[in-house]
Amino acid sequence: MELKNDRLIRALLRQPVDRTPVWMMRQAGRYLPEYRRVRAEAGSFMNLCRNPELACEVTLQPLERFPLDAAILFSDILTIPDAMGLGLYFEDGEGPKFERPVRSAADIDALPVPDPHAALGYVMDAVALIRRELQGRVPLIGFSGSPWTLATYMVEGGSSKNYSRIKGLLYEQPELLHKLLGKIAEAVAVYLNAQIESGAQAIMIFDTWGGVLTPTAYQEFSLRYAKQVIDRLQREYDGRRVPVTFFTKGGGLWLETMLEAGSDAIGLDWTVNIGNARARIGDRVALQGNLDPSVLYASPETIRAEVGRILADFGEGEGHVFNLGHGIHPEVDPAHAAAMIEAVHELSPRYHKASENGAG
Amino acid sequence: MELKNDRLIRALLRQPVDRTPVWMMRQAGRYLPEYRRVRAEAGSFMNLCRNPELACEVTLQPLERFPLDAAILFSDILTIPDAMGLGLYFEDGEGPKFERPVRSAADIDALPVPDPHAALGYVMDAVALIRRELQGRVPLIGFSGSPWTLATYMVEGGSSKNYSRIKGLLYEQPELLHKLLGKIAEAVAVYLNAQIESGAQAIMIFDTWGGVLTPTAYQEFSLRYAKQVIDRLQREYDGRRVPVTFFTKGGGLWLETMLEAGSDAIGLDWTVNIGNARARIGDRVALQGNLDPSVLYASPETIRAEVGRILADFGEGEGHVFNLGHGIHPEVDPAHAAAMIEAVHELSPRYHKASENGAG
Repeated sequence: MELKNDRLIRALLRQPVDRTPVWMMRQAGRYLPEYRRVRAEAGSFMNLCRNPELACEVTLQPLERFPLDAAILFSDILTIPDAMGLGLYFEDGEGPKFERPVRSAADIDALPVPDPHAALGYVMDAVALIRRELQGRVPLIGFSGSPWTLATYMVEGGSSKNYSRIKGLLYEQPELLHKLLGKIAEAVAVYLNAQIESGAQAIMIFDTWGGVLTPTAYQEFSLRYAKQVIDRLQREYDGRRVPVTFFTKGGGLWLETMLEAGSDAIGLDWTVNIGNARARIGDRVALQGNLDPSVLYASPETIRAEVGRILADFGEGEGHVFNLGHGIHPEVDPAHAAAMIEAVHELSPRYHKASENGAG
Repeated sequence: MELKNDRLIRALLRQPVDRTPVWMMRQAGRYLPEYRRVRAEAGSFMNLCRNPELACEVTLQPLERFPLDAAILFSDILTIPDAMGLGLYFEDGEGPKFERPVRSAADIDALPVPDPHAALGYVMDAVALIRRELQGRVPLIGFSGSPWTLATYMVEGGSSKNYSRIKGLLYEQPELLHKLLGKIAEAVAVYLNAQIESGAQAIMIFDTWGGVLTPTAYQEFSLRYAKQVIDRLQREYDGRRVPVTFFTKGGGLWLETMLEAGSDAIGLDWTVNIGNARARIGDRVALQGNLDPSVLYASPETIRAEVGRILADFGEGEGHVFNLGHGIHPEVDPAHAAAMIEAVHELSPRYHKASENGAG
């Protein structure tokens, strides 16, 4: 089925659009009462992820409310380590944890590369179902955590403040960490290719914790494995280009280096000015971002002004996907998300030639 | 009394030294068993801060162990809001909290600018005592949190993940936040000048949370008030220049902008390459940093290699104070801190002409 709205795909490929496409990281999530209802029904977060019908339902919820230009698979970045047998669980208010973290060479050797159609079949079923239910309304984004980001959880056994265990490994037994990251990169590539084959029309790689590294360590332990993943992805499927977006939170200093990953687009958090980022790398990749998610705590008028500022900073021309600089906060009023999206719809056409010519 | 070791002061002023001076953020702290003993005696963290004899004792402890080039006052960044009447307390494993956070215009109007010799007299007593006990061995660094960083705790009521309250204020009632920041800036300036008069020979301003802002908001709400503080400081006292170091964690993208604060030196976290930072701003300020504190989890050999890399990245010439890129982690083995300091002593002379000439 042809895409009825291909703004996202076009913008990621720096092709002309009539207005800037917009979606939100974590757009299916806790800030929506209809999400909280389904989440309560499911009993647990992982039950929700593992049930394709419910995952599909919550993926589509924000599209019922808002005129968004993309859907993103509802899932968790830790499905891969879970499928590797680490025993993912969630403690209330504590974030994700693993029963069996990876600490030794033997642990790493024992890790399987999960078959995406077996242990992760529920994800592929969700992708296929969402794609079917979307009926070409907007493209479906598939995603994964970056190898480095997944490794932090796998080695630390959960969220971390100082990353003492994985940085101990990084500085003391780098060859062991390389072995782990190589294995994760393989698993991520296989997983994302299966998502593409199941129906994902664009791919996003979240390197949530790359920004805790030194510049040298970032290149050696995060970027290198993101590139390994991207190198192995099917960039064209079913006759269409599948654009890849790479996002390192806190990576604003390293944008030029991040180009080496070979993605079509780079995600920006809110600490970088998008106009400067465009001047630095905008001739080579599209940019996604970058409203401070906390702006959505403010009034619709303020939200509109801040949206306007980002659109103006990016300026005229192609290659911008509007988004938050990180996931939407759970306490945000959905009406404020609506104000952001409306502002992008109303304020962005002036920056696109296609809006005058009726092209697209 | 003349300083017997003035390497820190000279390096901060980009004057010739025989080797790179070295100290560690949080060098008096939990990683030292002798600190934990005194902390247990004191009963609580704030009791320790409020007792000048004990604060002096723990300030000097790391100097007994290690050949450091500076002492830093043992205290907390939240002494000012505490003296403003917010009711500071610590819950186990929870970080600092305030009984009476600042939320309204009336709250802000009611805030006093504390007399540093009254409510904060215990800090001045500690500074004077430490200075006396040091007997000119090394300079004493006084410090404060930046106005923005203090405001985050005062408005949120403690540590924060999303900064929802203060960012709500920032985007929705900026004039109110400006009023609060102006008042805090006044209090910080008065407080630091009193520290200088009591014996502090260098000053450091910690902008721990400036990095959570957008570039625009950083300039308007963090940098502007750091500059207000620095503008009001006595930069010369008792016939000697008092150098000021300004440190925004996560500020690597904004180094050129940070120059506007008017400090003598800028602190760097570990996410920026110090050689690049020097190329960008090293002709105008000294640089302090920037070893990833997690490197101290690694072996002495690895620590030495990473120290060598930073010294080589900075290269030949003046204006470098070796430090961690953030406070030392509580679980670090003191022998690993010793390895870092020894490496700076041994590896840095080759980068300084004064080491050949016997100048100083």
